[in-house]
Parts: sequence; C-alpha cells; structure tokens
Amino acid sequence: MAGSTWGTILTMTTWGESHGKGLGVTVDGCPAGLLLCEEDVQKYLDRRKPGQSRFTTARKEGDQVEILSGVFEGRTTGTPVSMIVRNTDQRSHDYSAIMDVYRPGHADYTFDEKYGFRDYRGGGRSSGRETIGRVAAGAVAAKLLAELGVTVTAYARSIGPVTVSEERFDLAQASENRLCMPDAEASAEAERYLDQMMAANDSAGGVVECVVRGLPAGVGEPVFEKLDARLAHAVMSIGAVKGVEIGDGFAAAAGTGSRNNDSFRGAGGSEIRNGIHKATNHAGGILGGISDGDTIVLRAAFKPTPSIAQPQQTVNRSGEDVEISIKGRHDPIIVPRAVVVVEAMCAFTIADMMLLNMSSKLENVKRIYLR
Amino acid sequence: MAGSTWGTILTMTTWGESHGKGLGVTVDGCPAGLLLCEEDVQKYLDRRKPGQSRFTTARKEGDQVEILSGVFEGRTTGTPVSMIVRNTDQRSHDYSAIMDVYRPGHADYTFDEKYGFRDYRGGGRSSGRETIGRVAAGAVAAKLLAELGVTVTAYARSIGPVTVSEERFDLAQASENRLCMPDAEASAEAERYLDQMMAANDSAGGVVECVVRGLPAGVGEPVFEKLDARLAHAVMSIGAVKGVEIGDGFAAAAGTGSRNNDSFRGAGGSEIRNGIHKATNHAGGILGGISDGDTIVLRAAFKPTPSIAQPQQTVNRSGEDVEISIKGRHDPIIVPRAVVVVEAMCAFTIADMMLLNMSSKLENVKRIYLR
Amino acid sequence: MAGSTWGTILTMTTWGESHGKGLGVTVDGCPAGLLLCEEDVQKYLDRRKPGQSRFTTARKEGDQVEILSGVFEGRTTGTPVSMIVRNTDQRSHDYSAIMDVYRPGHADYTFDEKYGFRDYRGGGRSSGRETIGRVAAGAVAAKLLAELGVTVTAYARSIGPVTVSEERFDLAQASENRLCMPDAEASAEAERYLDQMMAANDSAGGVVECVVRGLPAGVGEPVFEKLDARLAHAVMSIGAVKGVEIGDGFAAAAGTGSRNNDSFRGAGGSEIRNGIHKATNHAGGILGGISDGDTIVLRAAFKPTPSIAQPQQTVNRSGEDVEISIKGRHDPIIVPRAVVVVEAMCAFTIADMMLLNMSSKLENVKRIYLR
Amino acid sequence: MAGSTWGTILTMTTWGESHGKGLGVTVDGCPAGLLLCEEDVQKYLDRRKPGQSRFTTARKEGDQVEILSGVFEGRTTGTPVSMIVRNTDQRSHDYSAIMDVYRPGHADYTFDEKYGFRDYRGGGRSSGRETIGRVAAGAVAAKLLAELGVTVTAYARSIGPVTVSEERFDLAQASENRLCMPDAEASAEAERYLDQMMAANDSAGGVVECVVRGLPAGVGEPVFEKLDARLAHAVMSIGAVKGVEIGDGFAAAAGTGSRNNDSFRGAGGSEIRNGIHKATNHAGGILGGISDGDTIVLRAAFKPTPSIAQPQQTVNRSGEDVEISIKGRHDPIIVPRAVVVVEAMCAFTIADMMLLNMSSKLENVKRIYLR
Repeated sequence: MAGSTWGTILTMTTWGESHGKGLGVTVDGCPAGLLLCEEDVQKYLDRRKPGQSRFTTARKEGDQVEILSGVFEGRTTGTPVSMIVRNTDQRSHDYSAIMDVYRPGHADYTFDEKYGFRDYRGGGRSSGRETIGRVAAGAVAAKLLAELGVTVTAYARSIGPVTVSEERFDLAQASENRLCMPDAEASAEAERYLDQMMAANDSAGGVVECVVRGLPAGVGEPVFEKLDARLAHAVMSIGAVKGVEIGDGFAAAAGTGSRNNDSFRGAGGSEIRNGIHKATNHAGGILGGISDGDTIVLRAAFKPTPSIAQPQQTVNRSGEDVEISIKGRHDPIIVPRAVVVVEAMCAFTIADMMLLNMSSKLENVKRIYLR
Repeated sequence: MAGSTWGTILTMTTWGESHGKGLGVTVDGCPAGLLLCEEDVQKYLDRRKPGQSRFTTARKEGDQVEILSGVFEGRTTGTPVSMIVRNTDQRSHDYSAIMDVYRPGHADYTFDEKYGFRDYRGGGRSSGRETIGRVAAGAVAAKLLAELGVTVTAYARSIGPVTVSEERFDLAQASENRLCMPDAEASAEAERYLDQMMAANDSAGGVVECVVRGLPAGVGEPVFEKLDARLAHAVMSIGAVKGVEIGDGFAAAAGTGSRNNDSFRGAGGSEIRNGIHKATNHAGGILGGISDGDTIVLRAAFKPTPSIAQPQQTVNRSGEDVEISIKGRHDPIIVPRAVVVVEAMCAFTIADMMLLNMSSKLENVKRIYLR
Repeated sequence: MAGSTWGTILTMTTWGESHGKGLGVTVDGCPAGLLLCEEDVQKYLDRRKPGQSRFTTARKEGDQVEILSGVFEGRTTGTPVSMIVRNTDQRSHDYSAIMDVYRPGHADYTFDEKYGFRDYRGGGRSSGRETIGRVAAGAVAAKLLAELGVTVTAYARSIGPVTVSEERFDLAQASENRLCMPDAEASAEAERYLDQMMAANDSAGGVVECVVRGLPAGVGEPVFEKLDARLAHAVMSIGAVKGVEIGDGFAAAAGTGSRNNDSFRGAGGSEIRNGIHKATNHAGGILGGISDGDTIVLRAAFKPTPSIAQPQQTVNRSGEDVEISIKGRHDPIIVPRAVVVVEAMCAFTIADMMLLNMSSKLENVKRIYLR
Repeated sequence: MAGSTWGTILTMTTWGESHGKGLGVTVDGCPAGLLLCEEDVQKYLDRRKPGQSRFTTARKEGDQVEILSGVFEGRTTGTPVSMIVRNTDQRSHDYSAIMDVYRPGHADYTFDEKYGFRDYRGGGRSSGRETIGRVAAGAVAAKLLAELGVTVTAYARSIGPVTVSEERFDLAQASENRLCMPDAEASAEAERYLDQMMAANDSAGGVVECVVRGLPAGVGEPVFEKLDARLAHAVMSIGAVKGVEIGDGFAAAAGTGSRNNDSFRGAGGSEIRNGIHKATNHAGGILGGISDGDTIVLRAAFKPTPSIAQPQQTVNRSGEDVEISIKGRHDPIIVPRAVVVVEAMCAFTIADMMLLNMSSKLENVKRIYLR
C-alpha cells in the first residue's frame, strides 16, 4: 500500500532513499496566506543534519532544501508545497559487505521479505535520512501553529541510563548542549556514557519528550482519531521508536485513580479556559482523546542505534551464518538528531487535527459561511 | 471529522452511546467466503460483558449481538457486515449530579469544549461501552486471521503494582482467572490489591500484553503505515490507554545496541522463515515497521478507572468549584475487561495490514490475475 | 476493499441487502448542534418508497427509519448518527429461477465473478434498496445545508425520449406529478410513453437534473478533489447511472469558446458575490473544479430498468444458454424514485466539500481559533 | 483540504505550477519488481508536449522527466517513485494584463475566492501543465497494467461538430494524425474546422474516448467505489472536462430496456470468461460498478479552450467591467493533447482498482499467504 502519506486535511507525502538522487516531501492542504521561505525550513533541517558533534556520523551533507512549488510572493497559495533535498555525498561506496547480509536490528531482512529485493545502499528507504521529508514538512506545520499561538518543543529526556533531573530541568539548556538535554549536568554525564559506548564499539538509546503549549481544548476526534492515538501513530512511525506514552504513561498504570485524576479547579494550577484550571496534569493534556487546554506531554522511546562496529552474528540471503562488522562511522546515539523529528511529527499532526476540528460545531461552520 | 472508522481495506465504523438505543459496527472489506455466525462474535462480546466478577460493574446487559447484513448462507459475501447490540439497561437514571459537573479524569469537559454540549448519560460516546463495536469487529478479524494461521492473544501483564512473573508465566491461566493474568499467584495477589482499592473507594490501572503468532514476514508499510505505528494508533485509541510499546519498548531506550540487536541465525532460536532464525526477540517481531516473522509483542498501559466513590474536587460548567462523589458501582479496574478490546484492535489492524500487503510484489499481483 | 463509505470529513457508511434484515447508514462527522429528528429523514425516504404510482413496484415496505445514535435532546452531538430501516416484506420467495441464472443488465454475473458467490435474493447488495442509506444520509446533509443557506433540488429532465421544455419549465410542477417532471405537459406525455413500455413488457430510462442554489464561491479542491469530480463520482456511484455532466456538458464539446465562456460583469446576469455577476452559466457553477457562486447544474443519465418481463437470452452459472423472463412487478422506469437519490448524493457531497473548504485560508483558521 | 492525491493503494500526489520551478508527482504503492526507466515515462510526456502542430501552443518546453527515487537496478522497489519535470520556459513575462482581471472560463476568480489570492502566472496550479504529473504517473500504471495483460487506449472521438464515423473507424489512424482521430477523413475535416476557429480568434472543444481491453471481470467495489464512479471522478478531475459517460451513456437514457440489456451467451459476441460471451456491450464493460470482462468504454466531453484572442467582457478584482484580449498563442483545441491525459487517468485508476480487488475473496488471500 501507499504508506508514504500522513495526515487527513494537511498531508505530507515523502519520498527518497539514503543514496539515491535526493529526498523530499510534498505538503498539501496548507492554508493559503502563510508566510513561508526556504530559511524557515532550513532551520529545522539543520537541527537534524549530520556532522554536528563527535556523536553524529561524519557524512558530509549540506541538506539544503529547495521549495519547488506552492509559495508565491512569499506566501503559501493553498496548493502543494513540494520540497527537495539533493543527496550530495553519493561517492561510490562498496556495498558488497552488506548487499547479501542481513544487519541485525535493521530492516534489511524485512524489506527483502516484503518486496523480493531491496535498495541496499545505506539502508535505502529505511535509512534515517528518510526523516528529511518529515522535518521539512514539520517546519511548515510549526510555522502554521505559531500563527495560532501553539508551540511544539522536544528535547532528550534520557540518554541510555542518564535521565534529566526534575529539579535541574532548564529548557533553555536543551538548545545549548549537543545532546539536547534540558539539564547541563545530565548532559555532561550522558556525554561520558556515550564516550564509553563508542570506546566499546557499542551504542545507546534514549527517550525524547515533546511538549505542546497553547493548544486550545477540543482538538482530537473521538474513538479512532483521538489526538493521543494520532500522535502515537505519528511518533511510532519514526524509525527506531519502540514506545510512546502520554502524560504519566506507563507510570499511571501502576498508580491509583485518586492520585491520577486531575482535579478541575476554579482557580489555581494551570488555566485551561476562561478561569477553569487543572490542579495537576497527569493526563498530559488529553482527556477522552481530546485536548483539554493544558500542555500536551508525550514521550518516545528510541532503541540504541543498531549499527555497531563490534562483530555480530547474522545470516546472509541464503540463510548461512556469517559474521558482520559494520564499518564506517555511525551515530552511537540517534536521540539528539531525532529530537527535531519528534517535534516535526507532533507539530504536523497537531496542525492537521486543528484543521479537522474546525467543523466540530455547527456554530463554527456558520462562522465561516454566514457573514 | 469522521473519527469513527478504522482501517484501509478492512474497515470498521462504530456508533452508539452508553445510554442510547444501542451500539454497533459496520465491518466493510471482509473477503467473501469466510464462515461467520453470531456465535463467533458473541464469544468475544461475552469476554467484555459487565457483571462477571466483583471487580466489574453490576450493570445488567446481555449484550446480545445481531448480524444485520453481509452474511449469506453462513458465509461473508464481501459486502458490509453490520452488527448491533441493543442497550437493555436503560432505566431512567438521575443524571442531575453529573450533567453540569466535569468528572475528573473523564471526557466531560473536553466533549463540552469540542461540541458545545454533550450526551451526559453515562459518558455517552466516551463510555467504555463504545468498545462493543470494536470487539464485534475484532471477532470477525480474528476469524479471518485464523484462516491464515495467525492468532492474537492478550492478557493482563500487571494490575496496579502486581506484575506477572516471567518464571510462573502460564498462558492457560489467563483464561481461567477473573483478572486474565497468566500467573495464578500474581492473580491472587492482584485480587487482594483490588480489594484494598475498593475498600478505599479507589481504583487501579494495569498493563495489557498482546502477542501475535503465525504472522508471516513482510506485513506493514514503510514510513507512515508501519505495522507498529498502526498498532500503536489502534491501541492508543482505546479509552484509558496512556502508553504503548513494542518488544522491549521503553526498556530498550536504556539498553545498548549490542544487547538490543537480535541476531539472525541459520539455526536456533525461533524460526522465522525457511530455516532462518532469530536468537532473541527484543524487537517484538517488527523491524523497520515490517513484521519479521517472529512473535509480535505489544503492551498497553491503562490508567486507573477515573470513576471513584471518594469525594473529588472539580468544577461545574460555570467554572465554580464543586465537590463530586461518583455514585453507583464502577469497575475498580478495567484491565480484565479491556484485554479482549486490545486483542480485537490488534487482530483487526493485523488483518487489514495483511490485506494491504498483498500487492507489495508484482509477483503476487500476477499470482492473482494471471492464471 | 471497503467501498461502502463516502466522504472525507462528513462521511456515510451504508450497509444492507434487498432481502436481508434491513438496511442502514452511519453518518459521521456531522457538526454538533444541528436540529435533527426522524421525521426529517422520513420525508426523504418517503420520496423513494415503492408503491406510489402504477409506475413503481408494488412491494409493500413502510421504510420507517429509526435513529439509533448521535442525537441527544433533538440535536446532533457530533458523534455518529446511525440509522436503520428494517425490511418488512421478507416473505419467502422462490428464487430458484434466478439463483443460477445471470439476469442481463444486472450485477449477478459480476458479483459472482468478484466474490465467488452472491446473495441472489432480489439483487442483494446491488438492489435499488441499497439507496435507502444514501437517502437517509442525504436528508441529514440537506438539513445541514439549509442552515448554511444552500438548497439542493433534483427533478426528471427527461423520461425516455420525452424531455422537459425550457419554455414550460416550472419547478413547482416537479413535486406535483408522479414523474417529478417540472413540466405538466411533458409529464403527461411521458406517462403515455411509459404505458406503452409496460404494455410491451419493456422499460425506459431518463435524465435527472440537479441544481444547487446558494453555494458560495470557493468550494471544491483543485486537481483531484474538484467539486465536479466529486459530484460525478457521487452520482455515477448510483446504480443505473451511465453518464454525468455539469453545465452544458457534452453540448459544450461541440461549441466554441466565444459562446461557452461565461462573461463576468459588474452588473446584470446572476450575482455571484459583492456585485460581481455572470452573464451566463454554461459552466454550471464550477470553474477549475471550484464553485463560482452561481447555481450548480448537474445531469445524470439513467439507463432503462434492466428487469423486464419479456423473455431474454442469457446463460446460467455453468455458461449454458437459457431463456429468462423476470417475474413480479418491476418499475418500468426508476427515474422518479431516483430523483431523491441524486439529490441526496449531491447534498451530501456538497456538505462534505463545504466542511473541507473551511481551512482553505489562514484567515479562516484564525477566525475559529483566535478570538 | 489536500486534493492533490489520487488513489487508495496505488497513489499519485502531484505538485507544481505553470510558471514555477517545475512540476512533478510521487507515485506510491507501486508493486516492487516492475521494470521502469525514464524512457517509459518520457514516451507518455512527449504525447502531451506543446509545440507539436499548429494547433498547439508554441511554448518551448522539453518536458524532460527525471526519476528521483523508488527505482533500483531498473526495477521499482515498492517505495515512492518521485518524478520531476523542470520548467525551462520561465522568461519573465508581463502579467499585468491578467493579474487583476478574471479571464472568462478560467479559474482565476474561483482561486481568488477560495484562497484570497492566486499565483497569476499562466494559470498557476490550474494550468494545463498540471497534467504533467498525471501523465507521468499514468505511464507507470500503464507499465504495470501491461504486465497484467491490460491495455488502455484513448483517442479523439469528436472535435467541435466533427465526429469519427463508425464505418471508417481505424484505431491505427489515431497515432498517425495530429488530432489523434481514428478516422483520416474526419481528421482532415476537423483540421479545416480548427483553421476556421483560429481565423476567427475562437476555439473548439471535443470528446475523447478511452477503451480498456483485457481487464478481467470482478474489478470495482460495490456502492461508492464502483469502477465507473472512480473513472468518472478521475476523468472529471481533468481541467476542462464537463461530462463523462460509460458505454451508451446519455444515449441509453433515451432507449429501452429490451435494447439496452446485453444478453449473455454461451457462444458468440465477445468472450468475457471461460466460454461466456456478451452479445453486445451497451454497458461499456461495467455492471453494478464491477468490470464484466468486456471492453471498458468511456467518453469525456472537453469544453472549448477558454483562452481566445477576441475581446471579451469581464471584471477586475474590484468588480469593475473591463475588456480583455488574451495575448500569446494558445491551443485552439486541447483535445489532441488531452488524449494521453485521459489515458493516464484511466490507466492509473484501473491499476489501483485491480490492486484493491485482490482481497475480494478469501480464496485469493489464502493464495498469497498459505503456500
């Protein structure tokens, strides 16, 4: 099936492979009149670009975006916004070591089973470079959300066993350190942990947290298109994500109703509308699949990078046991570069759900058509 | 938006409220020729029926299903299978206590914000009774999967702080105890915990685990319609679910690549195809969003039942502080009755993805059309 | 595939067979707050009911609708509106004459080829009774459109060779004569033609015209979801429709640009917005797939009823030549009863497209979210 | 809404404007293993290229396609096939004459109403160049259909008042004359007619006919996704199409059942399966929305080119009456270049519906999964 399109009213359709000619995305359904330029998108792409620290691959890619359509005189026209990033680092590589071998933790085996063969160059479509289209589209969505007073911010909550401390939490830090952790101390500790991993030819995983502020109550469609269900889908569709939780998430499952319920209050706590407040936010801003006006809180678990330099047991296409050592430099952790991808997927999904929600009440439909 | 339809080729569209005339579902896209009768569906519905133990609501509902269309001479015809369950326990209740008050942890507030008003009788569309349609549809999907050699089984993995022990794990137990736990000892302990909760007018949450066996490799669509992304969407759309994970899930985020990668082997471990085995299954049967032939393992975190009898602080529609005590008997834990809902959503999603995958290879398209 | 759902934001999912337990529809995505009762729907269903004249089947069906969900205290709640019509005329018929024989002009053969077998009772899912769900859903859409100042009206433009005269055109007539023709003289002539057809055990076709008034400019999505493309899809999906045209349609293909172009004018002709007028309406109210503010004009060609009493050559399931005479009374013309079906499909499609269009401009999105 | 994606399993998402950087399409869901190269696509694009005769615009565009993704070692990989055509004729034009004026018969007015402003350069997204993406995608679909024994062929059936004669019909002619008419005599007459139109600064319309051969019975989904409904949608979505009909179409509406019904026969007429034949094909190969194994016959009515050089009355954005004379050379007829667009849309739609139909029977699902 066509699995490369996301969204209902605001959609993105991505394409491209790691070592093909390039990667791109077509964003359709963006409301007309939004100020948009390449720089808006480039800022987001730069955050996922390789080569930013000793913890990311040394692949040389400028990842310069070109907007091909849908923008006229600096504003979106309502027609599809097509964006492309050309691959530049297409040196002829020697893929003989992996073309017939199934790398553990990668999708080599499953692509072969599904399609009969695969583009084995650098992971093809299952490469992390596939997220370029997501991030470019997310940048457009973030621009739209900003017009509506909504901000989406993600950061690393934990790296391997190192978790951000609630006490030291400082969001400003996240944009200042290379690991995107909102806690300078934890970040330094995580760097030491990653150095150990690299020395051991091993890799680490981590947890990305994303918060959405300014989202009004009422967004999300009951039953199957709940806001949390859509966000879970969006975020779980990012390669290497193995778990998603909202608010207290798995911790809520071990708690009690009296503690987990968030009291509504006439005053105190965070205001969610016209003087109504919530005393706490265990729900992570979503009740019954619909935003409650409070901050949306989501966490995504990323598995450790599967590409490690130490020898691993595996099989080739004929099912014979072979040993593989994955050469070249690979990110020992993908979390810092994945932060912007989570942000992009959440922003895009929230924006789409906001557009979907516009017709929830007859009163709103009349507001548009009867003037 | 229309949020009551799930699936792409095999779809279910559900409808109904807690205290309306009934609830139902239309399953469309089911392949023709599947043996199906009301008893097949009733078996599943009986597993979610209230009144089965002291831990479930005493509401009297037979929840008898009637198949209205799409089956002829005992087989599905390929046209929509419409099913209905009439509500019988529609005594006139006194809703004055909740019609203007927002119950903490419920969707009362968000429905009012989204739609301007709500059906306040027993939660209306956001009631747990909404799952009747899901379970009926899941029963059809399970019947279809059985024809293809695929089984889907869910059970309670933890209730409150009590978790099933790996050593004592015995799947047969899950269908024998009231809490659906595959560990008799844990089940007994959980019962004691729930008795405490009830005595304290409090409630508990828990984790449901679901395993899918017999699924061939290749199912799931890369990028946005990954098998795990769809499953996460499906399961997170169940009311009260706050987290979903696949395989090692959140635990993987704290681990290392060398441990988390599953080695492929020519022999040993579990066979996934033609002599290829996997030594471990940290991935939970999904690589790159595509099934790898191994067992799919998914867990869902359910929050504690929000309806508790102890007094809670909240506000009314005017934003004034009020105290609420939710009367009537409510399940102190929804996990045992939610087990079949998770199973239903997973079965339905897997079946849809199997149908979607049929055209992945030109060779398969030719197998259908060129004979 | 699931082919029983129509619409994107406002959707209908229909189910049911001619001689099964009943037929129904679930309307999802209807904005909350719309006044709706069974009588609103019944009025539309009564217009397609059998037994209204000597030109329609004598089947006894009350076709009483029951609303099962989605309406509370007289208003739609925003959740799915499920409606059911029970079949009452389920006398045990003798189907032996048709169960193994392919009736010419019917879908017997194609259902068998597609699904391997079919519900042969009265056409099963391919029966004209399938339109009950469409009409019930269309009634909801018409109610919604009325709130927005939009009316949808269909009538018979021609029956067999008899066409309504432009000069005598009188819309009021259409609701007064049994053939729904807006021309009393043509209607009388058409009745005589149909009497001839019945005497000859033959049948007739005709053309239904539908006009939409009050639709503002801007509705319809460029490229694939053009308003005319969606309407063509919606109307062509009605059984027996073999052609659809907008505005001058096929006649335009033989004309010239200078005649076919509609001049915009500062005054004169019909006003489409703020003083802008169109001198003519060859376009039928749609330019570039988007409504232009003028009346939408659509025509649908219905083939003659395929069920005729005279003997016909055909084959049985084994491919052997047999002769068939279709017994029982059948409508010699379906056009009068199809008028409300065309109206329903157009109303539903227009309503969905209006909801889709709400987010076309950033300005409109802000109007909803920034107050 | 996002209206730039077409298809369910096999999808195309198009983008681009007349005078932007280029145009393109992403084809997703194409089965893996299909031989595909740029030449396959270029052949189709060349058929719609401008500058091929005195009846087409003199715009200089090479319209060279580049495949950016989804093909590896000469075969489709199952991942999105992205294709781009760069605009080369981007000389700075003087648009002052049209930027504030609404050209009659064009979408200038409706785009402005919908989006608040528009890309006024050469029609922007509503230009005929928008079809480049459709044709490129259709070329991929045609390649897929060829593997399944299905061919799709379109030609001009009439140009202005000149219609192909049934007696002289010669399909080979269609690829030999500039007007794509399968009748040399009619073609010569049509050329004379067009010369008159050009002399008068006027334009002509016409009818394109498309036939699909080799399609097995069973393709098309009952109710809303009927094969004819989807084809009508696909073809009506092409700019300038004002009507679509299947088989006898509008002519059937004036006929009788005894004449319009196609007899099935054990022998004689055209064989549709295993010895079953149809004596005639008034149905145009579709019964009940499902292919019957006979040739699919579809016709599309194209309105005359709205761009004409003679002075026309219209208004500017302020609603003031102005006169416009559209400068530059424009096709006096778009039918010859539209032939390949109709072919592309039909091929794509048929291919998608074939993939959708694969799971209609349990037996077919088992054929893929149980081996």
